[in-house]
Amino acid sequence: MKLIVFNGAFKQKHKDMITETAQKVNADVCFVDSDDDIPEEYRDAEVVYGFGMSVSGIVKQNVHLKWLCVTSAGVEHLFRPGVFANEDCIITNSAGAYGVSIAEHIIAVSLMMMRKLTYHYGESVNGSWGTPVLQRSLKDSRITVLGTGDIGCTFARRARAFEPAELSGICRSGKCSETVFDKVVSTDRLDEILPETDLLVMCLPGTPETEGILSRERIAMLPEGAYIVNVGRGSAIDEDALADSLDSGRLGGAALDVFVTEPLPKDSRLWHTGNVLITPHIAGNMTLDYTVDRNVEMFCEDLMNYAAGKPLKHIVDRKKGY
Amino acid sequence: MKLIVFNGAFKQKHKDMITETAQKVNADVCFVDSDDDIPEEYRDAEVVYGFGMSVSGIVKQNVHLKWLCVTSAGVEHLFRPGVFANEDCIITNSAGAYGVSIAEHIIAVSLMMMRKLTYHYGESVNGSWGTPVLQRSLKDSRITVLGTGDIGCTFARRARAFEPAELSGICRSGKCSETVFDKVVSTDRLDEILPETDLLVMCLPGTPETEGILSRERIAMLPEGAYIVNVGRGSAIDEDALADSLDSGRLGGAALDVFVTEPLPKDSRLWHTGNVLITPHIAGNMTLDYTVDRNVEMFCEDLMNYAAGKPLKHIVDRKKGY
Repeated sequence: MKLIVFNGAFKQKHKDMITETAQKVNADVCFVDSDDDIPEEYRDAEVVYGFGMSVSGIVKQNVHLKWLCVTSAGVEHLFRPGVFANEDCIITNSAGAYGVSIAEHIIAVSLMMMRKLTYHYGESVNGSWGTPVLQRSLKDSRITVLGTGDIGCTFARRARAFEPAELSGICRSGKCSETVFDKVVSTDRLDEILPETDLLVMCLPGTPETEGILSRERIAMLPEGAYIVNVGRGSAIDEDALADSLDSGRLGGAALDVFVTEPLPKDSRLWHTGNVLITPHIAGNMTLDYTVDRNVEMFCEDLMNYAAGKPLKHIVDRKKGY
Repeated sequence: MKLIVFNGAFKQKHKDMITETAQKVNADVCFVDSDDDIPEEYRDAEVVYGFGMSVSGIVKQNVHLKWLCVTSAGVEHLFRPGVFANEDCIITNSAGAYGVSIAEHIIAVSLMMMRKLTYHYGESVNGSWGTPVLQRSLKDSRITVLGTGDIGCTFARRARAFEPAELSGICRSGKCSETVFDKVVSTDRLDEILPETDLLVMCLPGTPETEGILSRERIAMLPEGAYIVNVGRGSAIDEDALADSLDSGRLGGAALDVFVTEPLPKDSRLWHTGNVLITPHIAGNMTLDYTVDRNVEMFCEDLMNYAAGKPLKHIVDRKKGY
């Protein structure tokens, strides 16, 4: 079995771990920085592991590719026609590696907004003491988590410690094995929950079903002063309607890590919209050691499964799109 | 019984609650905005409730004052000679009202520093997407809480949900009824714990014992890249040594809400020190509704105790200084 690994954010310890696992299953492994580095004898490799954008060349050309493992959680870019030379190629992703990092991001930006820390930080960098301003709290807030996958659940377990008034989960099936939520309902009950939501946390994958799910009408259903955090995909929100609602002062704020177009275009009105906290898709990237460790552990686990002919644990359902 | 209440941050609902409780115990209550508003017939009031700085006039003049309840947690300003006309006056404070607000502040600023959110926020306000930078995490961090009162424990209960490697408490006695800590040790073991601390959270009252406790020598004991959060009193830290350590890049960052002199003087070098997050003593002020609600509940509870001749619950130990 031939295996190509794209180096990306991997350190030596990660490469060692992959090499060791490859030896156990008699796989030959080749580490590359980019598609151009792949030696001729690996162009028919059975397995490729790397960041989705980096691997596109080999995936498009190699009809012998049987398994692609991407280091990201999002995979929507893999479903366009012509991406795979072998349309039957199994896809696994690294959903499960990002929960800790993204959950910490959500807590951080929620509190930054509710406690007006962006105002205070702005004052301090100008050498100004500033004045106390009204704060809000996670305690006694009604928190709704839209998307109860690894990210939503990892956030919810942390949010519970802040004593929210209600912690609700929303997912397609309305069923979730995580017991930390006060209730979990199905997505078709979203309109019921929005008017009772002080903090809406969106952790949805990019699928046709989630596109535009937070429409202008639904943004208007949120109570005055509500906060939105989006760490899933930018396509889930009507950005223009969100900007209108923020500019009018109806919403308390929005912390956006993902956007319809990334990087956020220079002429986007979101740069100048009040109470928007913009971060450049860094909630769950590979700049946190733990995320990279977990990513490699998950791949190695599935490499053992693959070699043993067992089902892969982190497999992507092409029909669902995640 | 005559009772003077300084309005401060109280809303009508808070005044109603105080009035109701006063009626139950046959007390006459007078609400004032400032010392100048106190009517002649209340100048010999038995009880005063308000923010420490506001009440100083009546406290200094009224020999009949038997109980002062301050809305703050800190009381060090009350121990100077000449503050009380009646030196036997009982003091209660509002420690216990601030835990939730300050705990949220600590989590917020810790994550802002560890996840480099001040950098990203700075980029975003300039309309710049920025670049991903290395992040650190509360997960697997060794967190030390110096001062295990209401604030330290309320923080620790939230911090636990982030899965730290170790969560240690340090207090004078080395004993704490809160079970969330992995260990609680006495202050004389501080030097043992500092080298094993990635995040040092300081929630100490201002007493002669805590003054300068984080000395130049002790700052040097922290591991490279460690973070400090101070929400107790500024006097606990050698500010100049801290600035040296931050400017040299040895420490990861410091989030300071309290300072030796407040407001922080214009010419303080801390304004220009790298990786300092300065907030103007807002971690636990009365800008959060919950804090004010809790404050008034605690006073009313003790007003009932006082009238019934029972011991007050929130009494300050003049010897300990908190």
